[in-house]
Amino acid sequence: MSEREFHDWLSRRLTSTAPDVIAGAGSDDCAIMDTSAITRLAVSTDTIVEGTHFNAEDDPLMIGTKAVMAALSDLAASGCQPKWGLVALTMRKGLGDRWAMRLMEGIAGGAKRYGMSIVGGDTTSAYGPTNVNVTVMGSPYREEAVRRDQAKSGDLILVTGELGGSILGKHMRFDPRFREMETLLSVVPVNSAMDITDGLALDLTRLLAASNLGATIEETEIPVSDAARELSLKSGKSPMLHALSDGEDFELLATVPHGTLSEIMKVWKESGIKTKLSCIGRIENAQGLRMASREGTVRQLPPTGYDHSF
Amino acid sequence: MSEREFHDWLSRRLTSTAPDVIAGAGSDDCAIMDTSAITRLAVSTDTIVEGTHFNAEDDPLMIGTKAVMAALSDLAASGCQPKWGLVALTMRKGLGDRWAMRLMEGIAGGAKRYGMSIVGGDTTSAYGPTNVNVTVMGSPYREEAVRRDQAKSGDLILVTGELGGSILGKHMRFDPRFREMETLLSVVPVNSAMDITDGLALDLTRLLAASNLGATIEETEIPVSDAARELSLKSGKSPMLHALSDGEDFELLATVPHGTLSEIMKVWKESGIKTKLSCIGRIENAQGLRMASREGTVRQLPPTGYDHSF
Repeated sequence: MSEREFHDWLSRRLTSTAPDVIAGAGSDDCAIMDTSAITRLAVSTDTIVEGTHFNAEDDPLMIGTKAVMAALSDLAASGCQPKWGLVALTMRKGLGDRWAMRLMEGIAGGAKRYGMSIVGGDTTSAYGPTNVNVTVMGSPYREEAVRRDQAKSGDLILVTGELGGSILGKHMRFDPRFREMETLLSVVPVNSAMDITDGLALDLTRLLAASNLGATIEETEIPVSDAARELSLKSGKSPMLHALSDGEDFELLATVPHGTLSEIMKVWKESGIKTKLSCIGRIENAQGLRMASREGTVRQLPPTGYDHSF
Repeated sequence: MSEREFHDWLSRRLTSTAPDVIAGAGSDDCAIMDTSAITRLAVSTDTIVEGTHFNAEDDPLMIGTKAVMAALSDLAASGCQPKWGLVALTMRKGLGDRWAMRLMEGIAGGAKRYGMSIVGGDTTSAYGPTNVNVTVMGSPYREEAVRRDQAKSGDLILVTGELGGSILGKHMRFDPRFREMETLLSVVPVNSAMDITDGLALDLTRLLAASNLGATIEETEIPVSDAARELSLKSGKSPMLHALSDGEDFELLATVPHGTLSEIMKVWKESGIKTKLSCIGRIENAQGLRMASREGTVRQLPPTGYDHSF
């Protein structure tokens, strides 16, 4: 199958009926969208690479799904709903068009699930690892997007789901936290948020640095996943260390005004969301990240986590 | 240098002062832009891969420049001015941060030259070819973007610059045809356009198919480059075949209403643009692409060109 034939298949597969897509999926040099209904555009791009974020033997449907979910997770964390997406695929030579089509089915299915139109892309091949890049565009649920530099002293720190051990399976199948973010935004202003991709300790440290504030979190309140416990048996590290520092949780880290927790939990329960919501601590004026232990002793928490090096 | 340190350098290097960038370059999960001044958004994504679009030993500054120019070329061909860009880089492991920084200087410099703010990106590394993906966003010079499916029967077919032999050097140093497109749009409605990336014969065939029309072009009017002649000496193919079918010309192919040529050429000359402009033929109702030879015989022109296969 030539690039042209693959594109023809793809254009048919991805044809969008969204009224705000004027020209989409491969028909032109650019995709053209109608932005007259929005005043803010949020964009993010995310690449997953064979050998780092997925394995060569993984089902391409799962790889495509992960690529789009990882990108969408950034939109969710910014309090934005998905609108349009682009896919840039560099395939390992020899994988063939059935592989490519199944990958694209994963991307198309994931995009559709969250109401996003795939409006364009680029495909190349190389003698090397497959590389799937997804760019997502969206617009805020509220007037403005949620950022990570607007945390306020006194804010409660919330975390969705359970943390750690994602490598055992969750990293290939997770849901971006759109519904969770939208529910939070229906109750309170979300002062700051980000998604947890490089470990809670490192990502929270980044949020605090961006907001020029500090925090104390409670060890007893960290939602440690079963996978973190399972991994702990093999790794020799504690489940808590996995929860604090493992990569690819793709959970939501958010800060909201103090005094709002009972109202949030009430609405959360009423909404029927199955995802766990934990209040793990509080934003403080004193710089740095601290953790209060079960016994009540407070220690500095180093920003352990996944920092990619060249 | 860790990813974090590289990002910090990059955020400082790319900080945008454009008033429509609310949050940019790595400070948040998403970049946030103000779209209240635009009603149409044009987006395109373009990947260049080591071994296919550039060589490992090329200067990273040139690689970065090419990556951004190749993506911008799509915006120019759509009659849109650049606004915001994203960079997704997968580096071959071991290239180091000086290499990455020089690549980013190429991207930043190219973006700046055309008034585009780099608002975000993603960096990863892999045991394999370096992969540079650039996503560009812009808005039309006129009310609507120029597309490839709106050619009209009778339209004149225009081509900028000279074609063929790009591999001898031009493919690493070319200018997206913004000024040329803007000048055309100042004189006439540009009914259809695209950039020539896979060879004139193949790309014009695509434009005709999209517009459901045909064309006859004049062999004597095809602007054959010196590089096409030079390459011909080694390849054994004619300079004309190189001009018709070599990839990566990054020139503009446009169709405009008939009867407008003398006015266009007058304004072109007055504008001081150095780029050559050729009228190579005419859009016709009869499907297919034909070429009239020097001697006046007309033959079907096969869509030879660079079609990427998996």
